[in-house]
Amino acid sequence: MIIILKPGADDRVVEAVVARIAELGLAPHISKGRFRTIIGAIGEERVENIPLIEEITGVERVVPILKPYKLASREFHPDDSVFGVGNIRIGEGTVTIIAGPCAIENEEWLRETAGASKAAGAHVLRGGAYKPRTSPYSFQGLGEEGLKLLRAVGDETGMPVITEVMDPRDVAKVERYADIIQIGARNMQNFNLLLEVGQTHKPVFLKRGLSAPIKEWLMSAEYILSRGHNKVMLCERGIRTFTDETRFTLDVSAVPIVKEESHLPVFIDPSHATGRRSLIAPMTLAGIAAGADGVMIEVHACPDKALCDGPQALVPAALAELMGHVKRLASVFGKRMADDPEAALP
Amino acid sequence: MIIILKPGADDRVVEAVVARIAELGLAPHISKGRFRTIIGAIGEERVENIPLIEEITGVERVVPILKPYKLASREFHPDDSVFGVGNIRIGEGTVTIIAGPCAIENEEWLRETAGASKAAGAHVLRGGAYKPRTSPYSFQGLGEEGLKLLRAVGDETGMPVITEVMDPRDVAKVERYADIIQIGARNMQNFNLLLEVGQTHKPVFLKRGLSAPIKEWLMSAEYILSRGHNKVMLCERGIRTFTDETRFTLDVSAVPIVKEESHLPVFIDPSHATGRRSLIAPMTLAGIAAGADGVMIEVHACPDKALCDGPQALVPAALAELMGHVKRLASVFGKRMADDPEAALP
Amino acid sequence: MIIILKPGADDRVVEAVVARIAELGLAPHISKGRFRTIIGAIGEERVENIPLIEEITGVERVVPILKPYKLASREFHPDDSVFGVGNIRIGEGTVTIIAGPCAIENEEWLRETAGASKAAGAHVLRGGAYKPRTSPYSFQGLGEEGLKLLRAVGDETGMPVITEVMDPRDVAKVERYADIIQIGARNMQNFNLLLEVGQTHKPVFLKRGLSAPIKEWLMSAEYILSRGHNKVMLCERGIRTFTDETRFTLDVSAVPIVKEESHLPVFIDPSHATGRRSLIAPMTLAGIAAGADGVMIEVHACPDKALCDGPQALVPAALAELMGHVKRLASVFGKRMADDPEAALP
Amino acid sequence: MIIILKPGADDRVVEAVVARIAELGLAPHISKGRFRTIIGAIGEERVENIPLIEEITGVERVVPILKPYKLASREFHPDDSVFGVGNIRIGEGTVTIIAGPCAIENEEWLRETAGASKAAGAHVLRGGAYKPRTSPYSFQGLGEEGLKLLRAVGDETGMPVITEVMDPRDVAKVERYADIIQIGARNMQNFNLLLEVGQTHKPVFLKRGLSAPIKEWLMSAEYILSRGHNKVMLCERGIRTFTDETRFTLDVSAVPIVKEESHLPVFIDPSHATGRRSLIAPMTLAGIAAGADGVMIEVHACPDKALCDGPQALVPAALAELMGHVKRLASVFGKRMADDPEAALP
Repeated sequence: MIIILKPGADDRVVEAVVARIAELGLAPHISKGRFRTIIGAIGEERVENIPLIEEITGVERVVPILKPYKLASREFHPDDSVFGVGNIRIGEGTVTIIAGPCAIENEEWLRETAGASKAAGAHVLRGGAYKPRTSPYSFQGLGEEGLKLLRAVGDETGMPVITEVMDPRDVAKVERYADIIQIGARNMQNFNLLLEVGQTHKPVFLKRGLSAPIKEWLMSAEYILSRGHNKVMLCERGIRTFTDETRFTLDVSAVPIVKEESHLPVFIDPSHATGRRSLIAPMTLAGIAAGADGVMIEVHACPDKALCDGPQALVPAALAELMGHVKRLASVFGKRMADDPEAALP
Repeated sequence: MIIILKPGADDRVVEAVVARIAELGLAPHISKGRFRTIIGAIGEERVENIPLIEEITGVERVVPILKPYKLASREFHPDDSVFGVGNIRIGEGTVTIIAGPCAIENEEWLRETAGASKAAGAHVLRGGAYKPRTSPYSFQGLGEEGLKLLRAVGDETGMPVITEVMDPRDVAKVERYADIIQIGARNMQNFNLLLEVGQTHKPVFLKRGLSAPIKEWLMSAEYILSRGHNKVMLCERGIRTFTDETRFTLDVSAVPIVKEESHLPVFIDPSHATGRRSLIAPMTLAGIAAGADGVMIEVHACPDKALCDGPQALVPAALAELMGHVKRLASVFGKRMADDPEAALP
Repeated sequence: MIIILKPGADDRVVEAVVARIAELGLAPHISKGRFRTIIGAIGEERVENIPLIEEITGVERVVPILKPYKLASREFHPDDSVFGVGNIRIGEGTVTIIAGPCAIENEEWLRETAGASKAAGAHVLRGGAYKPRTSPYSFQGLGEEGLKLLRAVGDETGMPVITEVMDPRDVAKVERYADIIQIGARNMQNFNLLLEVGQTHKPVFLKRGLSAPIKEWLMSAEYILSRGHNKVMLCERGIRTFTDETRFTLDVSAVPIVKEESHLPVFIDPSHATGRRSLIAPMTLAGIAAGADGVMIEVHACPDKALCDGPQALVPAALAELMGHVKRLASVFGKRMADDPEAALP
Repeated sequence: MIIILKPGADDRVVEAVVARIAELGLAPHISKGRFRTIIGAIGEERVENIPLIEEITGVERVVPILKPYKLASREFHPDDSVFGVGNIRIGEGTVTIIAGPCAIENEEWLRETAGASKAAGAHVLRGGAYKPRTSPYSFQGLGEEGLKLLRAVGDETGMPVITEVMDPRDVAKVERYADIIQIGARNMQNFNLLLEVGQTHKPVFLKRGLSAPIKEWLMSAEYILSRGHNKVMLCERGIRTFTDETRFTLDVSAVPIVKEESHLPVFIDPSHATGRRSLIAPMTLAGIAAGADGVMIEVHACPDKALCDGPQALVPAALAELMGHVKRLASVFGKRMADDPEAALP
């Protein structure tokens, strides 16, 4: 790292910095300019050391050189992480579509939605049993009963299932039923929950926090990976900005940035990001064109209620139409769909 | 609530809306204009019903009239919530200063900082035993050992103590040692944690999330209050914006807004919001001038290390100087300091 | 519009609102609920009337029904605006690539860049003669000399040219040399400049302001259209958010939203939005997949300086490679390139 | 500045950087680490040189050391700028209250508002003759007729007057009538307008742009100062964030930051920032407590229309009450009101 001293900082400051650097096992490299002194600290850089230097009076700024994350970084793992879930291949080279209802409401609707999504070409079934709700008075999900329904319907339709866990006390239970464990945006920095899922043997689907810089998102992945886990999937789901036309702003540029910085697969979730049904298809296509490895889409089938169409969910017919575009787009980029037998892991 | 139909929505839509409204126990009030039909829904408004109406095809928008929170709202509780913690009075009419180190590092430093803060005029001692750290490689806090140190030093100096809890499994333990339980910004929507602290008998200090609209912050307070709890303190600690001069943007206007909307005490935290030591004093004074009931300030005494002064912490001498201004400012607004015997609860 | 009164507002308020509505030529429709009174105002809605009603004591909120813009709106102009510039067709159904240097530096570099961009498949040549620079000490552009160079090189290469105007006093001069007149993001609400370009006969390329909601951007287009102009092109170029990995956040969802709301062509500018060369290609493809009618890309050829490659510009070879992807992507969506003779206007 | 090369950058890159540095009149200082090479560039730092180095292939980042603005900086002008306008003293040590209507609507209302504001204790009269309006269909101001009314009413009441200019073609006219020339937030980066007002002899009141980092705001002041002007006043008027409770977020921390960085007086505008009448008083007090040299407040007297009270304006009686608090607060901080004879310039 590089330590920039304030103008006029005297030798006492230089000595203090050099002493602190030595304590940290680093070698100093002093460069005195006419106006300022700059000190380089050579050796293994650790992000937790920065505040220990910044706190020294007379230091203006510390500029880190290495990235604060390591296991999630492409520098330490140049090849893309690719792995299988059932007969589905996840990661660079394939496009994976996760579809299903936001919350699991009852068996009939879930089965209907799952069947229709599978028929439309979706690969993984989503459905929430534990729901993070802004209001304590809202429906909080079916809990373990919902997990059982999801497992059963997933098995029936032959789709791996993904569901969210919100509480470290529920991790073991969710691991039992789910094929992929989701961490929601509001829990991206629920660090104890991250450590807990890091000890499971199921892939973890980590959504970006509403106001998380990409560095902090990768640091949260690092929490999971630091427990010996190696199947983390990242999902951009919209960031909080001033815009009022969409619920959040889907930061599509996060996709190629994550692909540059990290070896982990990256997905997008246009349903929650935009909150507008009419934007799901164009943003799905935008995400794939930008390099996303997959998309999570809210789908809702309500056979008996012709008028039912949640503001951020597609009906199965719309999903089927979108899948046609997705396939043509994937072929332009030389990618296969996740259930293509040719895409099978070696 | 008011339901605005899309232009050209026909009677089939009106009937669907009226039927749904009736299911929800509300009475419809239809108003057909030349271009649009507007339907009022009369009766007890519930925020969770809005999506059930918005999902009907042909509905453009649903405009709620009542607020989505109730127990936290001044409409349902017109008088300010005021309560005591030890000999400290918290709420409208007094100014409470919470001071101490960010993390509890060791007994000596904590004792030194606590004694100096008390001498400077601070009322409550803060100190973190469980630290939310962006990096898994950073110091995570001393855990229960830290809680014991905090309790001991609080007792010695005669200061009530506040500390953060991050995990629902630690709530009982933290309740045992702390006088006030803090929920950090990153856990503002960790709903299970909110429910858990809602069952304790200690005041809860709820920080605003980095990207939380005030409505969602009050909804999180509602989670705690919905468990029968009645001593929630709110703390504005900076929101994530585009600014790069400060770590976050302290939204001072949140103070008078919360005072209008809610009966709960509201604090500010200029240390974490700005991340710049030189801004702590002016922003403390700004917050109090805007009506805040108190301030949380990071203070750090390092007697043996003259050069130690974290970028967002005051040294005790600076706190003492600031307290002089705070007292004069409080008197302009007819407020007392929290440990003023005249401020005692009736 | 719908006028919501405060709880407890008495008949005096109702009368005041009704009187004001009548003055505005609207008919009132009163609906008294148990808790609140709601008044509908029927007739031609004008956004400038809203504050005249909101200012009445006892009014809580006024909810507009119609959109505040009219000429820019698809409701009033359902068909897409499509128009020609030279042999280039702009608008729905075609993809137009605008390429060139940020600023015109000298004749040689401009000619080199233009020739290489044309060869790579670009349709329109960009180049700034008047540059909005944050610092008064930075290069401010070549002015009229730059305009002449741009015109000459555009004619040589057979490319229409686009350049920015910043000052109402320069509009006539810029109109003389340019085929398309650009309004930069920082001038999106320079209303006198908008009125001035609204009187020219050249298409106007209106960039979105850094913190402009889409409604305000369309209102700025409305300024130009209100002068009888009918060839406005919109360009999303990134909004200011908390992200620090990119200079701004390219709001790709603005593309399908504008396409829904308006008949005007919409472009994206990934160079200025991201400020990172490696993101230009993926974000270009994302924008087109989301429905954009074109892309503005910074390209820079520096034949004599092999090391020169501005952080947000492509070298011509990279543009040529990207154009291959663009063409395949366009064909997936059934679109033609802007200079395709089959795309010619009837 | 410090130039950080990419890992693995070879000597060819080092040579290219050194050559470029030499061209720019700087001396290189090379420091080769195990992983990276860092090059310091010693000499006069110019912000416009940064891109010339960043564009070299193999350079990862350039870290500037000096500030990009100079005349606006406290480093180059350590003493606070203080100056008089009529009998009003503006700058550190005094509190100046600017009050008046948003737009000048007619003579009677302006005279009524001015007289009442003066009686309440305001020092400067504001009123818009040219209004930046989002919609082309809204009232655009009275133009020169408004300027004449403002001048006449200012003279009658003995108040200096401030008004906004939006167009470089109107600067000479506005200078003729106004005592202080305002540049609105939307024109903060209308650089030609800044250069034009920089040539006048009247103080310039420069509002911060809605999404302007403080550095860019000071750079805009630098534009004006670079023309030989020396009486620039800065005004924080709210930044665009995700919040929806207030129109913008008043960034109170901008006040102490500007005071640290610059010698220029700094004001706040709580009316436009919040858009809520009930927040004007608390935010005025917060701004002064944070160190602001003055406040701009919208005031509106409508004697004949008892119901008239714009959502972001105070009635004169409320201003008078607020002034009592302002005076007590000023005395706590040892400041005088701007028209206090004891505050007169030497």
